[in-house]
Order: sequence, then structure tokens, then C-alpha cells
Amino acid sequence: MLRDDLDEPPLDWRAKGLWQPGPPVRASEFAAAGHRLFDGAVSWPALVARRDALHRNIATMAGFCARHGFSFAPHGKTTMAPSLFEAQLAAGAWAITVATANQLLTCRALGVPRVLLANQLLDPVPLRWLAGELDQGFEAYLFVDSVAGVEAIGAALADQPDGPPVRVLAELGHAGGRTGCRTVRQLVEVAEAVADTARVRLDGVTAYEGGLRDVAEVGAYLDRTREATVELATRGLLPDEVIVSAGGSAWFDVVADRLGGAWLPGRRLRVVLRSGAYVSHDHGFYAEHTPFLRSPEDGSLDAALELWAQVTSTPEPGLAIVGMGKRDAPYDEGLPVPLRIRRGAGAVEEATGMAVTRLNDHHAFLTVPPGADLRPGDLVCFGISHPCTAFDKWRYVPVLDDTDTVVDVLRTYF
Amino acid sequence: MLRDDLDEPPLDWRAKGLWQPGPPVRASEFAAAGHRLFDGAVSWPALVARRDALHRNIATMAGFCARHGFSFAPHGKTTMAPSLFEAQLAAGAWAITVATANQLLTCRALGVPRVLLANQLLDPVPLRWLAGELDQGFEAYLFVDSVAGVEAIGAALADQPDGPPVRVLAELGHAGGRTGCRTVRQLVEVAEAVADTARVRLDGVTAYEGGLRDVAEVGAYLDRTREATVELATRGLLPDEVIVSAGGSAWFDVVADRLGGAWLPGRRLRVVLRSGAYVSHDHGFYAEHTPFLRSPEDGSLDAALELWAQVTSTPEPGLAIVGMGKRDAPYDEGLPVPLRIRRGAGAVEEATGMAVTRLNDHHAFLTVPPGADLRPGDLVCFGISHPCTAFDKWRYVPVLDDTDTVVDVLRTYF
Repeated sequence: MLRDDLDEPPLDWRAKGLWQPGPPVRASEFAAAGHRLFDGAVSWPALVARRDALHRNIATMAGFCARHGFSFAPHGKTTMAPSLFEAQLAAGAWAITVATANQLLTCRALGVPRVLLANQLLDPVPLRWLAGELDQGFEAYLFVDSVAGVEAIGAALADQPDGPPVRVLAELGHAGGRTGCRTVRQLVEVAEAVADTARVRLDGVTAYEGGLRDVAEVGAYLDRTREATVELATRGLLPDEVIVSAGGSAWFDVVADRLGGAWLPGRRLRVVLRSGAYVSHDHGFYAEHTPFLRSPEDGSLDAALELWAQVTSTPEPGLAIVGMGKRDAPYDEGLPVPLRIRRGAGAVEEATGMAVTRLNDHHAFLTVPPGADLRPGDLVCFGISHPCTAFDKWRYVPVLDDTDTVVDVLRTYF
Repeated sequence: MLRDDLDEPPLDWRAKGLWQPGPPVRASEFAAAGHRLFDGAVSWPALVARRDALHRNIATMAGFCARHGFSFAPHGKTTMAPSLFEAQLAAGAWAITVATANQLLTCRALGVPRVLLANQLLDPVPLRWLAGELDQGFEAYLFVDSVAGVEAIGAALADQPDGPPVRVLAELGHAGGRTGCRTVRQLVEVAEAVADTARVRLDGVTAYEGGLRDVAEVGAYLDRTREATVELATRGLLPDEVIVSAGGSAWFDVVADRLGGAWLPGRRLRVVLRSGAYVSHDHGFYAEHTPFLRSPEDGSLDAALELWAQVTSTPEPGLAIVGMGKRDAPYDEGLPVPLRIRRGAGAVEEATGMAVTRLNDHHAFLTVPPGADLRPGDLVCFGISHPCTAFDKWRYVPVLDDTDTVVDVLRTYF
């Protein structure tokens, strides 16, 4: 159970996506009021989430990890939504992963007991804060990929020699990739630097396969990760329980294939998966790249996010301007996908033959087929591509059940 | 003076870009504490604003509008920052422009006395709310570009026949553009629909030239806007005081050229400019497109925003990974521009020969020249391109004076 004493500002006129011109309302009151999607409490544009899809996805990945003997540290940067962290932890997640010092701070403030920070932390101010939190029982793992990074931790804590160690995972990258040592030799140097640094302790090895292009590349990289782990263990640079972590929502089947099982003799092995986008899934990039397309017998995910917006103008035949844009929808891994339309106050029907061709800050250009006859005021429901750049555009995300009743409001902290 | 009794949540662990792990701090206290950019109160990545540049830009555009006899309704969607709205109004702005119903609500809650909503408002819930606010003395202008849009307003207010009229501006667009009537004939039909609708009143004509490509196109479009206004006036569809509005930060010199002066016989003419991005300007799109490049004698703008982030990894020669990404920086009109670096705790120097080639959610790929020798922990200061997609990624923007002292914290409401 995360903290339940957070002093949350109530919903008011600041809440984009809701319409709250009156006195502030507590989120719990709002969620209990039985609002419906089209009753005026939600204003356009609005990002909404489908409760059942969120819950199914959380259960599906928890089951996947359990079947493969993995620990799960879902990447919290995707949503930064405490209520989803809570659901993920309740479903058995071992930790929450984050990307930045501020996200680490947020998790600590929320009461998340164990966090992976999937980057080097080099700033002495958060490092010294972290050391104090470790003293209080907080459990965190940092990534390191350079001797300089290890030295930065050591230098920040030089005058705090006592207390629990800062636990780190040494990151193995790949040529042309993002962070991470490019060679096992560099990884060994980093591990040796950790061994030489007071208050820093190496707990394992981490990899990020998300940027690779195919199963063969990912498999080869994960094989190298395994070999590098064995090398560090052989050199006596790893403890009795070794963490090996991989991330992403596009290749977790290959992770299961290459990192599953007992392959590290003489050590207890904890393989930690860090997928994040799975929680909402999408109608774009992840719909096309989920590993469950390769292994449908292993599960499936449901797109949980919908972006509802209003047609504001139909200025030319074949063109509708819809009131949502770059401030509302992701556009970095594909544009929003028209799913359904609602004409006036009528029934919801399929959006057939429509496509978004361009976004401005607050406008979408929607091509419509002859005869579609969209009118100003009609609503369009879009699926999105790339959950990370959807959640971060919204502070409040109404959660709907299958009857379009608002049952919760997600808050996000970006 | 905008409202000064806003119940603002204090700064705490939620404030990305600040480091506030302790008890909540009032923004005014934080701003008065004399923090410096590098003393640990600001955490990386952080978007910061230069106070003097903001003030100079606000004064420059106020002066430009005054010299050309324009009223100014700066587009508030750029920043959604109440303290900047206040500075713009104090410098003589006639109104604040917004893009959405929720932004209109925010302005009303903040106490902005007069607002232009630069879109059709079709949703009956905000329309009925607006009618009530007009009764209380709020002044707002909506855009309309269709008979259906006019009818939507009329229908929403059908049972509220009394009270001040909802004021609208009829929008003239251009072929291939965004919203707006494509022909003067359509514009006349919209104006006639307004005349036939209770509680709706036409106050003028509006245009948006921002998407056009060159001075000739913009000039021709603004000439058509002028001719359309004369046509509506001739037909008796406009009141004694006529508003003609144009928007954007890329062509306001052409607006001055084509819409300045007394060209509407028998009416008082108020030309309203809606530029928004000028307030912070940038190091990218607007640096390349500001009208002041064509007429330097008319003024100049200074880029006020800086994005500071930390090198987290230097995994390969020529490549540094910096801890900022799509969640922090605009990338829709050009990637961030490396300006300066700060090695360790040393002096700040120019970032020579560096370029951002790619952004992930929380990472930037920075190419560095041979010998640059960036190390993990070094800071890089970036300029940004497109202020609208910079401000909306930050809830708190520290404002610095020339000594890098934090003198204020902008809040944004997105």
C-alpha cells in the first residue's frame, strides 16, 4: 500500500480534460459521483483510460513474469501515476523503475519501497539525499556505465562513509546504442571501480535492448549480457544474489528466451524485467511491436487509452479540424488513430476511412472520406501511439468502465 | 492585477526541475531564498527562463503594437503562465488569447478581464458557463467559421435568452489552411447566421496567417481579410467598433503593413494582434522566422529559455548521452541547440561543434567534436526551438537574473 496521506490539491479549474469551474472537488468525490463520459464533467480534448484494459494488462505481464521466473520492475516513467504503481505492486511487481532523480524522489515520497533508477545518478545533491533515505530503509538500485560515474557517487558520499551501500547495476550497452559500456572489458573496469569505492556495491548487470531492430540482434546482445555477467561473477565482482535486468516492451519474449533459467552457477539469479508501456499498450507502435504478436499463446495486451476531441471546423470537403494537437497527443512514434465518432448526441460508430495527417499545438488535421459528413461539435475518439508521450501531456486521466462511467481519475506526476 | 488569492500548492517533491525533498515551500519563499542555478535547488534537467529577456520581449512587442496603433492580445497558450499574463497586461495588452475552453476557464479563474478564444466553442457546457460569466462582467470573444458553429452557440443558450451577447469574430481562412471560411461568401453566410441568432453578436473578422510561406502569400491573405471586412461592413453586418485580428509571431510586420491605418470607412477599427511565442522567443524556428529579421529597425527579441541537463554517459568517442529528452524539450520544429557547457564545477564555456541528433523520452544524443572531452556529470545548456512545446513540458520554470540567481518561479497551467 502506497502512502494514503498525500496532501493532494483537489480538482478545480486547473484540471485540463475535466470541466470544474465551480468550487474545488476532491478526486475521490469526483470519482464517486457516477459521471458519464458525455455528461459534461469531462471536457474536450480529454485523455481517458479504460479500467478493464489497464487491469488486464497488469495481470497479463505479472503472469508472464511469474511463468518465466522473472522479477518485474515496471518502468514507472511511462505513466508516473501513483494509482497504477500501486496496482502494479499489488500484482506482484518487485520494484518500480524510473528514469530521473526527480522520479526517484517522487517514488520515495509516494512510499514505493524499492526503485530501480535506470540511469547514472551523478548529481551530488540527490546522491546525498539518497544515502540518507537508504539509512531509513529505502531500497534503490542505480545504473553505472563508467568509472567516472562510480567516482561521482564515491565523491558525493565521501564524508558519509557509514550506512548502507548505494547499490548499482553495471550497464552493458551495444555499439551505436544509447548508454552502457560498449565492451565487457569496460564493464569489468566499472565493476572494479565499484569494488574500490566505499559505500558503493555492485549487485548485477543491466541491459537495454529496446533500440535494437530484430530478434537476432536482441538475442545476440542478451547473450553478451549473460556472458558478461558470468565474467564478472568469475572475477569475484558480484555478490551471492545477482540481479540481471533488461527493459522495454518490445522484446520481452527474447529476454525470456535468453535470460530465463539457471545459467549463473553458484549464485542466486534474479532476472528483472523493466517493461513500462505494456500497462496502457496503444493503437500504434506497441500494437505493432508487442512480443505477443510473436507468441500469442503467451498473452495479449489491450489498448487502454482513448483521446476524445471535438470537431471544431469542417472548412473544406474531405477535411475536418479537430480540437486536439501536440499538447494532447503523442506524435513521435506515429500520429493518433481515429477509432470512433459520435455525431451530435447520437450513438458512437466506427471512424471508417479517416486519418490524422498533421498536428498543430491544439489542432489535428483529419482527412475524412466522401459522405462521412462530420460536423462541428461531433466527437472523435482516437487511439494513440506511444504511451509515454501520451500520459505526460495530462495531469488527470479519467478512468472509465465499460458503461463509460467515470470510476477513477488517474493523477500523473511529470 | 490578476487574482492574488489563488490557493497554490507549495513546491514539494512533485516539482520537476526543482529539488525539494523536504517539507513543502511556498513559491514566494523559494524565490526569495537567493538560490543560484548551481546550488542544488534546481535539479537536472531543468527549463529556466531569463528574466531580462522576458521583460525586454514583452516591452518590445508592446512598443511595436503601440507604434502601429494595434491592440495586443498575446496568445496565452504559449506559456499558460499567470505571471507572464500579468506582465503582458501590465505592459498594455488589451486581452489574452487562448486556444481551448479549459484555457478560457483558467484565464477567468485567474482574473484576466478580457479573453479571445481563437477557436469555435461548440460544447454546450462551457458555452452555458460562459454566458453566466458574461453576466458577471467577463469579456470574451469566440471565433466562428461555420453556420453550424453559430447554431451551436444559439442552441446552447436557447433557454438563457437574456444577458449580454456572446461576441464572436468570423474567421476567414485560406485554401489548404486550417480553420476559417474559405470564401468571402461563406463568411457572409456565417455573419448572417449570427445576425439571425439571439444572444450572439458579430464584432469583427479574424485571420490566421501563421501557416503561410512567404510575405506575398501573407500579404494577399491579409488583403482578402481587409476586403472581406469591408464587405461585411457594407452589408451592415458589423457594429460601430469593428475588431480585425491576425495572429502569430512570424508575420506581424506584414500584418502592420496590410492591416495598419484607417481603411474601414465609417467605423472605429481595432486591429488586434495575437502573437504568443515572442514572449520567450527561441534559438530555433522563431529565431529564423521573426519579422524583426526583415525590419531590424523595428526591434529585436531575445531567447529567454534555457534547458540545462547533465551528461549521464559518454559511451563512445564523439557521443555524449545527456539526461533530457522528449519529456523535457520541444522536438517538433527542430531539436534543442547546444549553447554552453559547464565542466564539473567549473566556469561556463561555449558549446562549440556540438549538436543534438536524436531524443528518446529522457535522453538526448549529443555529438561532440574530437577533444571536447565531455564527462559524465558535466552540464549542457541548450536553447530550444518552439516555445509552445517547451513551456507545456514544465509546471515550474525558475526565472534567473543575469547573475544566475533564482528571482522567481513561473507556474504553468497545462
